[in-house]
Amino acid sequence: MKEVRTIVLSKSVFEENDKEADALRLYLKDKGVFLVNVMSSPGAGKTTTLISVIKELSKFYRVGIMEADIDSDVDAVKVAKETGCKSIQLHTGGMCHLDAGMTTQGLTELGLDDVDIVFLENVGNLVCPAEYDTGAHLDMMILSVPEGDDKPLKYPLIFQKCELVLINKIDTLPYFNFSLDKVKQNISYRNEKSFVIPISAKLGDGIDEVVDYFKTKIQNIKTK
Amino acid sequence: MKEVRTIVLSKSVFEENDKEADALRLYLKDKGVFLVNVMSSPGAGKTTTLISVIKELSKFYRVGIMEADIDSDVDAVKVAKETGCKSIQLHTGGMCHLDAGMTTQGLTELGLDDVDIVFLENVGNLVCPAEYDTGAHLDMMILSVPEGDDKPLKYPLIFQKCELVLINKIDTLPYFNFSLDKVKQNISYRNEKSFVIPISAKLGDGIDEVVDYFKTKIQNIKTK
Repeated sequence: MKEVRTIVLSKSVFEENDKEADALRLYLKDKGVFLVNVMSSPGAGKTTTLISVIKELSKFYRVGIMEADIDSDVDAVKVAKETGCKSIQLHTGGMCHLDAGMTTQGLTELGLDDVDIVFLENVGNLVCPAEYDTGAHLDMMILSVPEGDDKPLKYPLIFQKCELVLINKIDTLPYFNFSLDKVKQNISYRNEKSFVIPISAKLGDGIDEVVDYFKTKIQNIKTK
Repeated sequence: MKEVRTIVLSKSVFEENDKEADALRLYLKDKGVFLVNVMSSPGAGKTTTLISVIKELSKFYRVGIMEADIDSDVDAVKVAKETGCKSIQLHTGGMCHLDAGMTTQGLTELGLDDVDIVFLENVGNLVCPAEYDTGAHLDMMILSVPEGDDKPLKYPLIFQKCELVLINKIDTLPYFNFSLDKVKQNISYRNEKSFVIPISAKLGDGIDEVVDYFKTKIQNIKTK
């Protein structure tokens, strides 16, 4: 099995996170690297979704991934093993979110010369990660069917912030009281420009559409 | 439908949360009121579980509930309507957790003269709520089957802190790769004294055991 490095992050010394995030975004654009901040509740399926997406996407582009967790390195090891992509583990030292400084530390360790797109798997949490700009070009989230279609009403900021929302575990729709129409309405209520893709990371449903979405985004950053 | 008050909480002015939490715990004990802090991920089934438990428990004891959310009052309205118990909504103003000061504000609004047990439904989040002592006599959490049996490895503090862990949505075990034995091992690894009860809040499985657990706790606080 591929060795996976674990980086223990220290808190950013910069007070002005937003400026630092803008600077990081610009730097990455110059390098031609597209950064995606992936957020969700614990257990919504971030890792499984990313594995499915990266397996396809890495046929076309060089992919890197940073797995942030409070503890453990189960995700980084799993992704590296299953996709063969460049992967590091970030430990947040108990912190509930990542900011631009912490993201920069991770990217520096990962190395940017041989990647076209980097996924940052944020800490599983619908509250705090939404409050900090990581410097990503795209904020996305994964909401899973078992969590319920009312989540956009209860966690406003993350749904306002995310441009892409994947509805995962749609294979379990028959077992839960969850309406795709209702959740789309609730998401649109928070951000009417959100793009919603229903998927089953486990069965592969919808993954092609997600891969096409990222291919367009990477092409855009490379040509602009 | 019963009217439900919404309280917008302000941040505690007390620096020393732990001392304030200890003082609140003692005060509640003197009043004979048992306070339970209920934590989980978004969508793990806190509200549905509490409704099932309160319906039974309120045959024996006077129950109050405080529903904390960043926004919306869907939970407080639902619980009040379905159980008839005393219920208020707490808005955290974007904050990801409750501390002892905020809990005290909520209890003051709820009123303590006509309750034996109060459930505090904390913000759906496995990280931040675990870091703040609310003054509760019992910290409990609900982990649901769709979230995965590895969660105690990834969110250490909340599992260390909780004396009672309910494993919810066990009716969906056939559809997820989740082992009850493995999750019990992982919970015990974080806190070997944790008491684990598998339940299905939807179907009512395991609820009697949870109710008996709380009956014993209330009797203890009333007689000691």
